Amino acid sequence: MGQTLTEKILDDHLVDGELVPGEEIGIEIDQALTQDTTGTLVWLQFEALDLEEAQTELAAQYCDHQTYQFDFKNTDDHRFLRSAAGKYGAYFSRPGNGICHQVHKEHFAKPGKTMLGSDSHTPTPGGLGELAIGAGGLDLAVAMGGGAYYIEMPEIVNVRLEGELPSWATAKDVILELLRRLTVKGGVGKVLEFSGPGVESLTVPERTTITNMGTELGATTSIFPTDEETKDYLERLGRGEDYVEIGPDEDAEYADQITVDLSDLEPLIATPSMPDNIVPVREVAGEDVEQVIIGSCTNGAYEDILPSAKMLEGREIDPTTEMIVAPGSKQASEMLAREGWASEMMAAGVNFSESTCGACIGIGHVPASDSVSLRTFNRNFEGRSGLEDDKVYLCSPEVATAAAIAGEIVDPRDLADELGMDDPGFELPEEYYGADTDIIEPENAVDDELIKGPNIGEVPLKDPMDERLEGSALLKMDDNITTDHIIPATQDILMYRSNVPKLSEFTLSRVDETFADRALEADGGFLVAGENYGQGSSREHAALCPMYLGVEGVLAQSFARIHKANLFNFGLLPLEIDEETYEKIEQGDDIEIVEDVAGAVRSGAEEFTVRVNDEWEATATLDASDREREILADGGKLPHTKMKYADAGSDGTPADD
Amino acid sequence: MGQTLTEKILDDHLVDGELVPGEEIGIEIDQALTQDTTGTLVWLQFEALDLEEAQTELAAQYCDHQTYQFDFKNTDDHRFLRSAAGKYGAYFSRPGNGICHQVHKEHFAKPGKTMLGSDSHTPTPGGLGELAIGAGGLDLAVAMGGGAYYIEMPEIVNVRLEGELPSWATAKDVILELLRRLTVKGGVGKVLEFSGPGVESLTVPERTTITNMGTELGATTSIFPTDEETKDYLERLGRGEDYVEIGPDEDAEYADQITVDLSDLEPLIATPSMPDNIVPVREVAGEDVEQVIIGSCTNGAYEDILPSAKMLEGREIDPTTEMIVAPGSKQASEMLAREGWASEMMAAGVNFSESTCGACIGIGHVPASDSVSLRTFNRNFEGRSGLEDDKVYLCSPEVATAAAIAGEIVDPRDLADELGMDDPGFELPEEYYGADTDIIEPENAVDDELIKGPNIGEVPLKDPMDERLEGSALLKMDDNITTDHIIPATQDILMYRSNVPKLSEFTLSRVDETFADRALEADGGFLVAGENYGQGSSREHAALCPMYLGVEGVLAQSFARIHKANLFNFGLLPLEIDEETYEKIEQGDDIEIVEDVAGAVRSGAEEFTVRVNDEWEATATLDASDREREILADGGKLPHTKMKYADAGSDGTPADD
Repeated sequence: MGQTLTEKILDDHLVDGELVPGEEIGIEIDQALTQDTTGTLVWLQFEALDLEEAQTELAAQYCDHQTYQFDFKNTDDHRFLRSAAGKYGAYFSRPGNGICHQVHKEHFAKPGKTMLGSDSHTPTPGGLGELAIGAGGLDLAVAMGGGAYYIEMPEIVNVRLEGELPSWATAKDVILELLRRLTVKGGVGKVLEFSGPGVESLTVPERTTITNMGTELGATTSIFPTDEETKDYLERLGRGEDYVEIGPDEDAEYADQITVDLSDLEPLIATPSMPDNIVPVREVAGEDVEQVIIGSCTNGAYEDILPSAKMLEGREIDPTTEMIVAPGSKQASEMLAREGWASEMMAAGVNFSESTCGACIGIGHVPASDSVSLRTFNRNFEGRSGLEDDKVYLCSPEVATAAAIAGEIVDPRDLADELGMDDPGFELPEEYYGADTDIIEPENAVDDELIKGPNIGEVPLKDPMDERLEGSALLKMDDNITTDHIIPATQDILMYRSNVPKLSEFTLSRVDETFADRALEADGGFLVAGENYGQGSSREHAALCPMYLGVEGVLAQSFARIHKANLFNFGLLPLEIDEETYEKIEQGDDIEIVEDVAGAVRSGAEEFTVRVNDEWEATATLDASDREREILADGGKLPHTKMKYADAGSDGTPADD
Repeated sequence: MGQTLTEKILDDHLVDGELVPGEEIGIEIDQALTQDTTGTLVWLQFEALDLEEAQTELAAQYCDHQTYQFDFKNTDDHRFLRSAAGKYGAYFSRPGNGICHQVHKEHFAKPGKTMLGSDSHTPTPGGLGELAIGAGGLDLAVAMGGGAYYIEMPEIVNVRLEGELPSWATAKDVILELLRRLTVKGGVGKVLEFSGPGVESLTVPERTTITNMGTELGATTSIFPTDEETKDYLERLGRGEDYVEIGPDEDAEYADQITVDLSDLEPLIATPSMPDNIVPVREVAGEDVEQVIIGSCTNGAYEDILPSAKMLEGREIDPTTEMIVAPGSKQASEMLAREGWASEMMAAGVNFSESTCGACIGIGHVPASDSVSLRTFNRNFEGRSGLEDDKVYLCSPEVATAAAIAGEIVDPRDLADELGMDDPGFELPEEYYGADTDIIEPENAVDDELIKGPNIGEVPLKDPMDERLEGSALLKMDDNITTDHIIPATQDILMYRSNVPKLSEFTLSRVDETFADRALEADGGFLVAGENYGQGSSREHAALCPMYLGVEGVLAQSFARIHKANLFNFGLLPLEIDEETYEKIEQGDDIEIVEDVAGAVRSGAEEFTVRVNDEWEATATLDASDREREILADGGKLPHTKMKYADAGSDGTPADD
């Protein structure tokens, strides 16, 4: 039986397990990508591993989310990241140099390689045949340490593209169409592998718009085969030597197949407030638009902005609409400036901003209240723009620009006559150029020691699990406690994510303001919760911070899947209890696990005896794989990995994993 | 006796008083300028005056401080300001179009005119012979209503310039030299009038760098005569018809004279944290520099940035230094982009940002902790950058750029050999060009009604003073209460300055958190304070918010001058009491003014009887001019002005004033 492209790349990198959907596999990572809001913790964890140098073929640290540097903590983070990249051998992309996915695509992405990135849009270079997966910071630190990346083998779904895009329809409309059909949950546990005769009609940057936003389908990643277009794109980048021809076997078998006829597409738009609320643009035409923003990792490249610039040339944006262009990279900015497009856009009324993720994550250019904002971004979750009841639409640069000219939503096909212009088309430059001044290569690093501002701490390491585990029930909570309850993600708290002690002060403050102080004082103890504890985001801090405060375990009726993995990763024992036990335990009760806990965890025990107040006992269960048990008993993934590296000797190569 | 230039312009515009230093004069205002952090209150006050249209020859509303729009309240403010400009007949400059002083200079500043602006750097166009003065928002609203602007006639000081600037010395060094000699208090109560043979060696933009930063001397304003350079500059702007030849009479007499020989100057720098901490650059050479920013209303013009671009062409900034360029206007950005300089700077490693005041007021690009930032701005007060213990230096674009290249402070004369370049010189473009898309003219206004987001309220109007004035002593305070105590100016509170009810919740919260609630509940009453009540900034909110909460008067041992004026302006009775009375009054006491208060205030009474708890009496004094008494008795300047306008009939022209 032939292999899919995904299977081929995974097979090439497989160090553990078998390529059976649902089974855990370990793969070797070639490239590591991190950015400024997740990178600080990645490197603090790398530091805690006592490693000397990143072991991946390439590691790259970008500064893109907080480039407006609204707080000195952002600027301190950037300086720390430069020093970490310098010390540990990563490329450093300076603030202002652009968005990680765009800059990575321009400089480093390679067909056939695996990449792990601590950002959810890491799959972007799938558009040129790299298998790129988003992960948590700890996974990234371990991968950079040379450890394998573990993941459940996803299902491989074939997306077959036929035909060619008609006028004014774009790659953005391809992915919006997929979102319309599959919804934001449609890709969960899957890799989308593109194929079919329509592929060759799309340039690489168009393909990366699609793979970038595959994230919104919930897909593990998305990938295109490589072909003449890929070769051509790499050559225009001056990286023709990175080209490798890869694709699926002809008899590859897929778990499912979806067909999209590109010639059926028309300009689409995601209406508020979910990327899968897709309608044809014409259906919402006439809606007043107060803000238009072009940029982001989805549509921030030179060639994404060029059609917009052509549409704006000699024209003026509507006086009631503000239009901001934040190119995805300095290279894009520089090329647009050199070729006169930046000034044309400025003359049309565009506020030409820095290369930054910025507004996409609510940092800068927050919309006015009760107003419509059209953006070429990938997400429009309610409130993400920084305004609580926002009305953010997602669309192509062409649709966004048409709205800026008209002051209202309009299908560009219906504006074409008035503008006297046809579809400006999607065109690559003869060659990409632009200075590399903002990329500091590892061999030219300017730092050899970490530079930590007052807000940057260390990552605490937990000791291996003891035989005895006891302490009080520090907090008793209801059902459905979210990670937002555990560690809020509001701006005023976000800036402390490099500072675990400070961040920990906010732990569970939305449930009980006294919790953090009490836990730290108690130096040990348990959390007690009802059903579905830890639902919501994947943030690791929701396990890291309780660990820092001394919490040793969580007794809950059930756990959210990702949070439970995080509890293993940070060495907190997640035990399931029944409703009767939950009801009976009171906050403040003394809790003791009767067994030799470390031994029982390692040996595969599923039942544990919980003794409460030395008065009564109940049975709790531990559902964990062998790998998770080892991690847990070692005190979490960080000490676990550190031990392995120590066993492996001084070269940092782990003994196994 | 001949007249100075200042006296000539004042004489032309005098509507009240005589040009005797220290005497109050009223002058007619030709041009009004306001920006986004002060403008909202200006227009809310204009609205409260029930006027239909700005009466000045020209009114212009700029959006420049909050253009990064970090909060929806900023964006709402911008939308409100557009609607106010539209409704009331002002020019509107969109966010991203640049800093008020730069854009005003490019488009509107005219020799011989008077201008009032609600920004302290309003004096900038003094460089081309306009008499421009910074004022509070209420003064601006009244002036736009057609009322005179009242001010104590300043002393006119002659600054005689001789010689010509040597290589690498710039206009910035002229004003830094004046700051070195005169200190930040040296200009208080004075107008600096420039003359002498050195004047003609300076272009208009160089002159405006000097007049802009005359504000840092505390000067009321600074002004240059006009000459061929002025004519030439206006012609390059395409506004040759605005040229008027004006200057002092040959026998003009000045209160004082200062002479600066330009040929003696060398590159200077203001060290942290005061603009008058001036040393030669060589004295601090070698200091590591982590951040360099070029821009601001002092040095943000095309021709200010050009020398920097020339220095950077084909070079790279130091990898340990971040360099941000935020041009002062879109015109400057567009010209730099069209001529290829923007891309050259990007290639050198510059983060090319939006046209904004931004970092100058701590909004964006906050320095890293414990790091040096060199900026071409005008102020380096401690903490102004957004970092508490900052180390901000002020210098010319040439000195800043040299530091970015070297990674440390260096006199550009000492870098010239290494760079193989001479002083790039200061050069005006043949002609200024660039689109006017971002200026919405009154005749093309897109709004005829005010658009108020949820954070934008109304300005409360106080009733005229009653015969009887009584209430409790709501709060008793110590000596030296500052306006920061009364209304804190931290970022989290600043964003409510368009929202008086919300802002008022913070009134005196640093003294007593319960105050605002108690005052609102009491609906009347007094503040009691020791010496020097209301010292610090000139912010009007420190009187407006207590007024909103119902406070009717302040009994203090003494008042800070500006705050006392604000108390008059918002209708709060400022009575001076002696130490014994201060000691005897307790918080919560019932206080009654025995006289017919309104009548006594109007009739010029200086002594008032304060009866406390119906038990004892003391004498308090009111020190106020006739004009201040009328304003006070009418309930403050807003109702006072409104009554005048009502008397004057429907055309909005006041009967007198």
